[in-house]
Amino acid sequence: MERLPGFRDFFPEPLPKGEAWSADVREYIFDRWKTVARRYAFQGYDGPPLEPLDLYKAKSGEEIVGQLYNFTDKGGREVSMRPEMTPTVARMIAARERHYKKPIKWYSTPQLFRYERQQKGRLREHFQFNADIFGEDDPGSDAELIALLIDVLRSFDLSAEDFVIRLSSRQAWQDFFTKNCSDQSLAHDFFQIVDKIERMAPEDSDQKFKLLGFRLEQVRDFIDSGKPSEELQNVLDNLSARGLSDYVKIDYNVIRGLAYYTGVVYEAFDRHGKFRAIAGGGRYDQLVNLVSGGKNDLPAAGFAMGDVVLVELLKDRKLLPEFSQSIDAYVLIEDEDLRNDSLRLVQQIRDFGLNAEYSMVAQKSDKQFKKALELGALFTVRLAAPDQAMVKNLKSREETSMPLKQVAEHLV
Amino acid sequence: MERLPGFRDFFPEPLPKGEAWSADVREYIFDRWKTVARRYAFQGYDGPPLEPLDLYKAKSGEEIVGQLYNFTDKGGREVSMRPEMTPTVARMIAARERHYKKPIKWYSTPQLFRYERQQKGRLREHFQFNADIFGEDDPGSDAELIALLIDVLRSFDLSAEDFVIRLSSRQAWQDFFTKNCSDQSLAHDFFQIVDKIERMAPEDSDQKFKLLGFRLEQVRDFIDSGKPSEELQNVLDNLSARGLSDYVKIDYNVIRGLAYYTGVVYEAFDRHGKFRAIAGGGRYDQLVNLVSGGKNDLPAAGFAMGDVVLVELLKDRKLLPEFSQSIDAYVLIEDEDLRNDSLRLVQQIRDFGLNAEYSMVAQKSDKQFKKALELGALFTVRLAAPDQAMVKNLKSREETSMPLKQVAEHLV
Repeated sequence: MERLPGFRDFFPEPLPKGEAWSADVREYIFDRWKTVARRYAFQGYDGPPLEPLDLYKAKSGEEIVGQLYNFTDKGGREVSMRPEMTPTVARMIAARERHYKKPIKWYSTPQLFRYERQQKGRLREHFQFNADIFGEDDPGSDAELIALLIDVLRSFDLSAEDFVIRLSSRQAWQDFFTKNCSDQSLAHDFFQIVDKIERMAPEDSDQKFKLLGFRLEQVRDFIDSGKPSEELQNVLDNLSARGLSDYVKIDYNVIRGLAYYTGVVYEAFDRHGKFRAIAGGGRYDQLVNLVSGGKNDLPAAGFAMGDVVLVELLKDRKLLPEFSQSIDAYVLIEDEDLRNDSLRLVQQIRDFGLNAEYSMVAQKSDKQFKKALELGALFTVRLAAPDQAMVKNLKSREETSMPLKQVAEHLV
Repeated sequence: MERLPGFRDFFPEPLPKGEAWSADVREYIFDRWKTVARRYAFQGYDGPPLEPLDLYKAKSGEEIVGQLYNFTDKGGREVSMRPEMTPTVARMIAARERHYKKPIKWYSTPQLFRYERQQKGRLREHFQFNADIFGEDDPGSDAELIALLIDVLRSFDLSAEDFVIRLSSRQAWQDFFTKNCSDQSLAHDFFQIVDKIERMAPEDSDQKFKLLGFRLEQVRDFIDSGKPSEELQNVLDNLSARGLSDYVKIDYNVIRGLAYYTGVVYEAFDRHGKFRAIAGGGRYDQLVNLVSGGKNDLPAAGFAMGDVVLVELLKDRKLLPEFSQSIDAYVLIEDEDLRNDSLRLVQQIRDFGLNAEYSMVAQKSDKQFKKALELGALFTVRLAAPDQAMVKNLKSREETSMPLKQVAEHLV
């Protein structure tokens, strides 16, 4: 029996051959995400991995359905496994925002699912760090989010040589569009072409722009000008005050495909250009209103960072620590008559909050000692008598004799 | 737009009225689960929340399908959201056990899904702590698991007055069955009736037992004898050596419904009898063999503890701590001319690994101070000049002046 294609098992380290995803690496990534989010005073939340299909249609239109893990449940409901977290958090905020003091700063680390036609090695699920601020439309909140994004990446020891945040503005693009075209109904199509401009042949994008009354050259000129709008200058100054200028640059190539962005948008990129975007986000001031059916209105901004590109990048830069199990004490049971006393000792060590291991069956001393070394134990402990323990520091190889009840304290 | 019935949102504390599930409580539960598992030298793993439907059919037969969130994916595969973790871990072990030194001690904290006909308030998902040992069939490994179960519950400050592990043995039941009936094909039906004996009217169970050639009285006598089998005595002695006797008793009423158990089985119960089982588990030596199609054979035992009954129990016993956000420092920006310097200070505090908050927009001093109190900040910091900070301990109300670069260290 095999796992489904596009899904991952997370095995404990050391990883078996043929397995790429480690539970310990995932734990490490999650730990950094959470730790830095809390430094920024964000609070954790979560929602269901299954939501009404309508929640995604409301936000992204019918065309999204082709990429979803959607199905009809046994109660006849149209449901979908969540492809992203923003609709869920917008739903939660729309329902309960009145209860919370503003601004609301929330983060989550959900697993997300997309049924994309399977390309070689392409995953159908990933984990994602999400951070959002609700109830504040000042560019200072965009800057706060971008600073968090930078500090999360720095917490993995990535530097300004490794990544850069490409900063842009949906509003600046909207202004450019309005100046050159009076038919607002064409704006979405226009933004979609801009979104693909770096991946499209110039002839193709030029042709597509022409259909909307633009020329590629004219669009390029706007991008190349790189002139920060007032709002973007504000964000840049804010980040500069924090000493984070080196991590960010204006780049109007970025526009973000999703329909719901309304202001500052950004993506984090590998400086070496090897990987897809590491993270992306922006301001989406209309979404809570949309999801609440007009009942609630709250400015919002946020970003998301997936685990897959991040881990690829960290591996590429050799920045993933090596993980191994770590045991405080391995209790050697050399005399089976002392097994019960040894179990008492194991319990004592664990009660003290330390990690302890031992052999559950009779085993030769040297085998037990080998196991202690394999587990990276810091100490071995063996009983010389029911109440007399020999504690050995495996680094210094120094061995000390003491009464059983003193052992746990000695191991700290 | 509302969440699906039977699913939970996890909101940050303080909880809004009408919401019962807090992200902070979940974090607390998970933290205890993981911490105690590691003390026992268990390693974390995870698998996909979506698996091939056949994985569950192989283990539990066609009748399980009625309770699953199963569907046909867009590639025509019969899939199911995971209803339990054991089939997944058995699949992972069957695939990769050769790589790992025995015994293998693994834990996980998956979210699980069942499409049960909706009863009032009944959930369709929950989180579950799973702990399993593979590659060891000595009763010492059953005892190790039960000790872990006890210590996990004790880590929530539950005592021997709050819960008890009811210990039984599928093997002892098998021996009783074989002594009284020669037709092994009836054993599964017999165990199913025993499993329901406490919830069934005596007339009904007596009638059902009679169809298999047993009398209720005869079954009751076996239960009431409460005589530990050799294997159970071994487990009891082991737990006694650890000082955990008070938490466990022999109770043959427990047999565990699932087909795959083969030896020691147990359930943790509220001593006050208010709740469903808090946890349950046992030995299942055939499952890896079954899931691997006979290619791999490995003794196995494990237990699972859900989050829902556990949280209900902790609430009942008033053992859930109160959670509130905790901020190390709130930076007051009383003069907007000092905003940039204040941002530099915020960054410095966060870089130091501490949690810092501030107002992203200009705000009156007293409003900022009130917010600092609401967030439970330990200190406020305000700049008197670009490089001169006033640090106030909100407990002692003592205020100290210092150069900006000394602030972070002062907050520890």
